[in-house]
Amino acid sequence: MANYKIIVEYDGSGFSGWQLQKGTRTVQGDLESALRTLNSGRTVRVHGSGRTDSGVHARGQVANFSLEKDWPASKLVEALNGNLDEDVRVHSCEAVPDDFHARFSAKSRTYRYRCSLTPQVIDRRTIWYVPPPVSLIRLRKCAQLILGDHDFTSFSKGPSQERDRRCEVLQSQWIKRGDYVTFAITANRFLRHMVCYLVGTMMQVGRGSLTESSFKEILEMRNPGAGVFRAPPHGLSLERVSYS
Amino acid sequence: MANYKIIVEYDGSGFSGWQLQKGTRTVQGDLESALRTLNSGRTVRVHGSGRTDSGVHARGQVANFSLEKDWPASKLVEALNGNLDEDVRVHSCEAVPDDFHARFSAKSRTYRYRCSLTPQVIDRRTIWYVPPPVSLIRLRKCAQLILGDHDFTSFSKGPSQERDRRCEVLQSQWIKRGDYVTFAITANRFLRHMVCYLVGTMMQVGRGSLTESSFKEILEMRNPGAGVFRAPPHGLSLERVSYS
Repeated sequence: MANYKIIVEYDGSGFSGWQLQKGTRTVQGDLESALRTLNSGRTVRVHGSGRTDSGVHARGQVANFSLEKDWPASKLVEALNGNLDEDVRVHSCEAVPDDFHARFSAKSRTYRYRCSLTPQVIDRRTIWYVPPPVSLIRLRKCAQLILGDHDFTSFSKGPSQERDRRCEVLQSQWIKRGDYVTFAITANRFLRHMVCYLVGTMMQVGRGSLTESSFKEILEMRNPGAGVFRAPPHGLSLERVSYS
Repeated sequence: MANYKIIVEYDGSGFSGWQLQKGTRTVQGDLESALRTLNSGRTVRVHGSGRTDSGVHARGQVANFSLEKDWPASKLVEALNGNLDEDVRVHSCEAVPDDFHARFSAKSRTYRYRCSLTPQVIDRRTIWYVPPPVSLIRLRKCAQLILGDHDFTSFSKGPSQERDRRCEVLQSQWIKRGDYVTFAITANRFLRHMVCYLVGTMMQVGRGSLTESSFKEILEMRNPGAGVFRAPPHGLSLERVSYS
């Protein structure tokens, strides 16, 4: 038995998210089906660093799985890609210690959310169009407010989720280049839909429909029913996952 | 009668190129069909600055057309976009003098060809993957060689084309950013498939399969049968067209 860590890129447009679901195409499902082919038809469980939602992309998703047979890591990359469609690809593979787990061993995840102030055509599947004017100063004030350790209940899906809703935000910044405005966030963990809720709500502040102090109040409310806005999934991408 | 100039972006993936053809979807065809709707069912001829090939994108294609009815330019943008699919979009419109012609009045066109040294997934429709190693120095030497006035017969489709095959290249450069290598070229005019032939052949030099002096010889041969290589269309985009 050997444990393998892979780095995976996918175009979320054609998937109902990461997590395995019956009757619909998911990234975990495609990877497990490719691995089953390499494992003489026996199921191989794939553990992702986190479950990206339907429509969300990943440039650096990390996953791990065990195989009975020992494979040279580079052969495994080729064999997997040979059994995957063009919208998902394994970029690298390495054998890791048995106790490595893509989710539980992860120290932090970095997401990027791409927005544009001009309507998108060629890049419409990866960038959210936000009509100007948008104040970068206001966006940055919001980004500053969420740095550090906070309870993000207000920016999560609802009461059905896990109890501990504290996340430590290590990086939170808005970067502007021409007409493109990108939000980069690194945290030890994320709640469901959290980045889309944060971006959608910060954009309300950036566009002047909400004040920074309302944003702060929403955060402090710790209530999933607080007046948050959710940005569409297609602007979001899981960029990388860090391990110690 | 008023003459209108529009700037158009399109994702070339779903089109058989710019030029109107029966039985297949083209950008000119979609624009003319949208304009027909606004012109009480009467055909409106759209003149593009140039005919991009099947699969080639444009961020700044320019076209012009005449309408009997006077339209406020911003209304025309909205009305056109309301009749276009999401992979083609009019970014701006302005009324121009009657003698303005998108093709004949153009002074220069700028194209970009995007390559990557890592396989692409999310951006697979707009970037050509070229396996490393690629020498940037060699690419840049080739780019230097084509600057100025040259007969590009060797880098065009064949003998059926127009007689004058001289083009004046005003800008020709390779830019590297991380794993991305982009070729930017500005010229007064382009022959059919010229940029794809140039990029494909320069990449042969960059990868060491062809020498710079062979590249120079090919250029000087002025022969459409010279040993050129054609890069795929999806890496190419018409970025802008300049008028005096």
